Amino acid sequence: MNRASGTRRLALASNGRRLNELSARTIVDAIRERRLTAISVMEACLERIAIREPEVKAWSFLDVDAARQRARLADEYQASGLPLGPLHGLPVGVKDVFDTSNMPSEYGSESLRGRRPTEDADAVSLLHRAGAVVVGKTSTSEFGMYHPSPTHNPLDLSRSPGVSSAGSAAAVVDRMVPLALGTQHTASTTLPASFCGAFAFKPSFGFASMQGSNVLVPRMAHIGLLARSLDDLTLFAGAFDRSLADVEALRHPPRLGLVRGPGWDSVSPDARQALDRLVAGLPVAVVTVDLPSEFDMALEVVLGLLNAHLANRFGALPEQTFRSFCPPLQEGIVAGRSLSAERYLELEAMADRLSALAAALLCDHDALLTLSAPGEATRLEEGPGSGVMSMPWSLCGLPTVSLPLLRGMNDLPIGVQLVGRHGGDHELLGVAAWLTDVVTLDGKSSHEQI
Amino acid sequence: MNRASGTRRLALASNGRRLNELSARTIVDAIRERRLTAISVMEACLERIAIREPEVKAWSFLDVDAARQRARLADEYQASGLPLGPLHGLPVGVKDVFDTSNMPSEYGSESLRGRRPTEDADAVSLLHRAGAVVVGKTSTSEFGMYHPSPTHNPLDLSRSPGVSSAGSAAAVVDRMVPLALGTQHTASTTLPASFCGAFAFKPSFGFASMQGSNVLVPRMAHIGLLARSLDDLTLFAGAFDRSLADVEALRHPPRLGLVRGPGWDSVSPDARQALDRLVAGLPVAVVTVDLPSEFDMALEVVLGLLNAHLANRFGALPEQTFRSFCPPLQEGIVAGRSLSAERYLELEAMADRLSALAAALLCDHDALLTLSAPGEATRLEEGPGSGVMSMPWSLCGLPTVSLPLLRGMNDLPIGVQLVGRHGGDHELLGVAAWLTDVVTLDGKSSHEQI
Repeated sequence: MNRASGTRRLALASNGRRLNELSARTIVDAIRERRLTAISVMEACLERIAIREPEVKAWSFLDVDAARQRARLADEYQASGLPLGPLHGLPVGVKDVFDTSNMPSEYGSESLRGRRPTEDADAVSLLHRAGAVVVGKTSTSEFGMYHPSPTHNPLDLSRSPGVSSAGSAAAVVDRMVPLALGTQHTASTTLPASFCGAFAFKPSFGFASMQGSNVLVPRMAHIGLLARSLDDLTLFAGAFDRSLADVEALRHPPRLGLVRGPGWDSVSPDARQALDRLVAGLPVAVVTVDLPSEFDMALEVVLGLLNAHLANRFGALPEQTFRSFCPPLQEGIVAGRSLSAERYLELEAMADRLSALAAALLCDHDALLTLSAPGEATRLEEGPGSGVMSMPWSLCGLPTVSLPLLRGMNDLPIGVQLVGRHGGDHELLGVAAWLTDVVTLDGKSSHEQI
Repeated sequence: MNRASGTRRLALASNGRRLNELSARTIVDAIRERRLTAISVMEACLERIAIREPEVKAWSFLDVDAARQRARLADEYQASGLPLGPLHGLPVGVKDVFDTSNMPSEYGSESLRGRRPTEDADAVSLLHRAGAVVVGKTSTSEFGMYHPSPTHNPLDLSRSPGVSSAGSAAAVVDRMVPLALGTQHTASTTLPASFCGAFAFKPSFGFASMQGSNVLVPRMAHIGLLARSLDDLTLFAGAFDRSLADVEALRHPPRLGLVRGPGWDSVSPDARQALDRLVAGLPVAVVTVDLPSEFDMALEVVLGLLNAHLANRFGALPEQTFRSFCPPLQEGIVAGRSLSAERYLELEAMADRLSALAAALLCDHDALLTLSAPGEATRLEEGPGSGVMSMPWSLCGLPTVSLPLLRGMNDLPIGVQLVGRHGGDHELLGVAAWLTDVVTLDGKSSHEQI
């Protein structure tokens, strides 16, 4: 990839903003109405990528000529007069844990270097059918596990972008693409969204097919959507479920339950204070919800299920391949090998129990409100950060939204996480829109739209 | 229970048949039209039970006074003019692996002696809502496992009734009740139906809630329905799914695939010949289907899953309770304890693979046709018989019907098993009706309606 020449002129929107900075909604509307071309938007995105990628390292694969060709095809398709999909002409990034038939699909692993599947993952096919133009594959930690990819946090290059959909979150926040697809088994979308300041939606379990993606634990495998605004997030979600395309903010204030846990001991004081200030400034009373003590076991359940599936999937690999894996992956496989079937079924039953308890918590609340991460983005040398805040909700398959509405002591974003009922994705996005409107319009938070 | 006096007069239907011998359809129609009372039918059933139960041992719990009271209540209910359920006033037996709030629910185990749950199993609630009068609980092997209950085959008391819904099959065939509810994880309805000469329907996985029943392996847990004719079987099935209440025979001959396997080596020569004669006499060409070699592993997969779940469920019991269990249950628990999580997940993946292969087999056939058991009912001293013929279809969750259309060398019944597509229960029952009509009307089989 060549660095862009500093003298090259970028196409500007009528309001003077660079095309890569526009919202996804603005772009697809403008392309639909022939006020913009897909290729002009793509050029602006590629320009931004050329400038920033050497430092941010958000991408594991890019072919700029092929990306331009696909954008031109989108423009030609439109000229044909055929009906357009909801994301027509929009550049998107796809986390490299999804199979793509026209790009390498390496799941962030040396062991899969150069792998080219013959078929697209279902979620990728869906993006194609929606008219999106896949720019490239975004960086991920190895097999989406808990080990950093080379990506840096675009807000502060000395900080972690979170794991594992780090490339997708960084690319979106750095205005390289307006939307990017991630995944989440525990915290893989929510944590990077919180660290980088993105808006993220992890839908209910079963929302989208995971066929053709790196599924670690079937019951915990979700897609994750990343964008720069809640409105763009709903546009993105609408490509998967049309009813979500135009979610409006709830008209009546939602019943919110404040959850301080699990793992609240690890939450930094500035994050606690920021959340408390946000809650205190809301125009509704927020009830504090005590998590049942069973949730203390969530981490153990998640790790047990994960390790068992790792052992099952990778147990028979040659020693050399095993040794090439990142340390957490090796450790997980080894731990999984010593797990009994009896214990595995206990863990499954505990997961079912936690899901039932979580569902009960949501009987009296439209959404639970908590943090997306224990604090601001960690410094790179401190490790990739902890996924403890979102892990139980992933285990229970509940939909979550992460909103970058808080700031920590270094003025870096911290996400507010909303947890909804299973299948209540539409309602949850409505609560998220309500909360975003209230916080950003009332000026009760120091948040600025990024 | 008192043996009935030989001189006591039984109520007779207008055609001279005893009321307990009438079909379920005839009984519910007659009760609905006030030509019969529920109590008169119940008396006839209780009379039959009183005569035969000391030898057949089909029941683990009976309270004849309570049964009479429930029948009288059904008559009073009808007098109220309220709408009647599809089984109104009909005496039914329920296998004692279903919880009943008004009867002991011991799952055939000494360890649960006297257990009285507070709630009915979902399937039992459904029977109540359909207006059925539950006569009592039918005998089952311990926890529905592969160990004989005290039941004898009513056609030949020296022979096995099969396992584990033995009491339900025996009670129906012996005309103690017109319908009885069973379950099936591997062969527990199909094998007793074949040995005793009942019509049986094991619906698609997910057809009915198993809540409140003895679930050994969730993915293999099915209800099983037993009756004395296909028409009664559809009446019974219709109580669970209204669309099945009046299945008509297919008008066009079905595309049938003949499956000789798995475990065809264990099939007796008379059973093979009887099936071949039936197939040769059909008015359609039947294609022989070769089972993919993966089906050779079905037994291993089934036993592995079963043992893992047994270890998980019973692993922490006191030694004394463990020692009280029947040998196959003890052995399963011990074998399950040594199974790794890694292996368990392999077995689950193999089960998924077999399900996909079975679905593919059914793309070109409306139903697969095979035997329900390897031959006639075994002699009691030979053990309870083998479930190998139905086990793979239970594992794959496919609907099956067993029809007592064949006879072996001792003129005892052998079931013909039809296997349908998942969710294609209606179509499968239509194929079964077609086959029953063709075979019994053409006189190509020595079968007599029982």
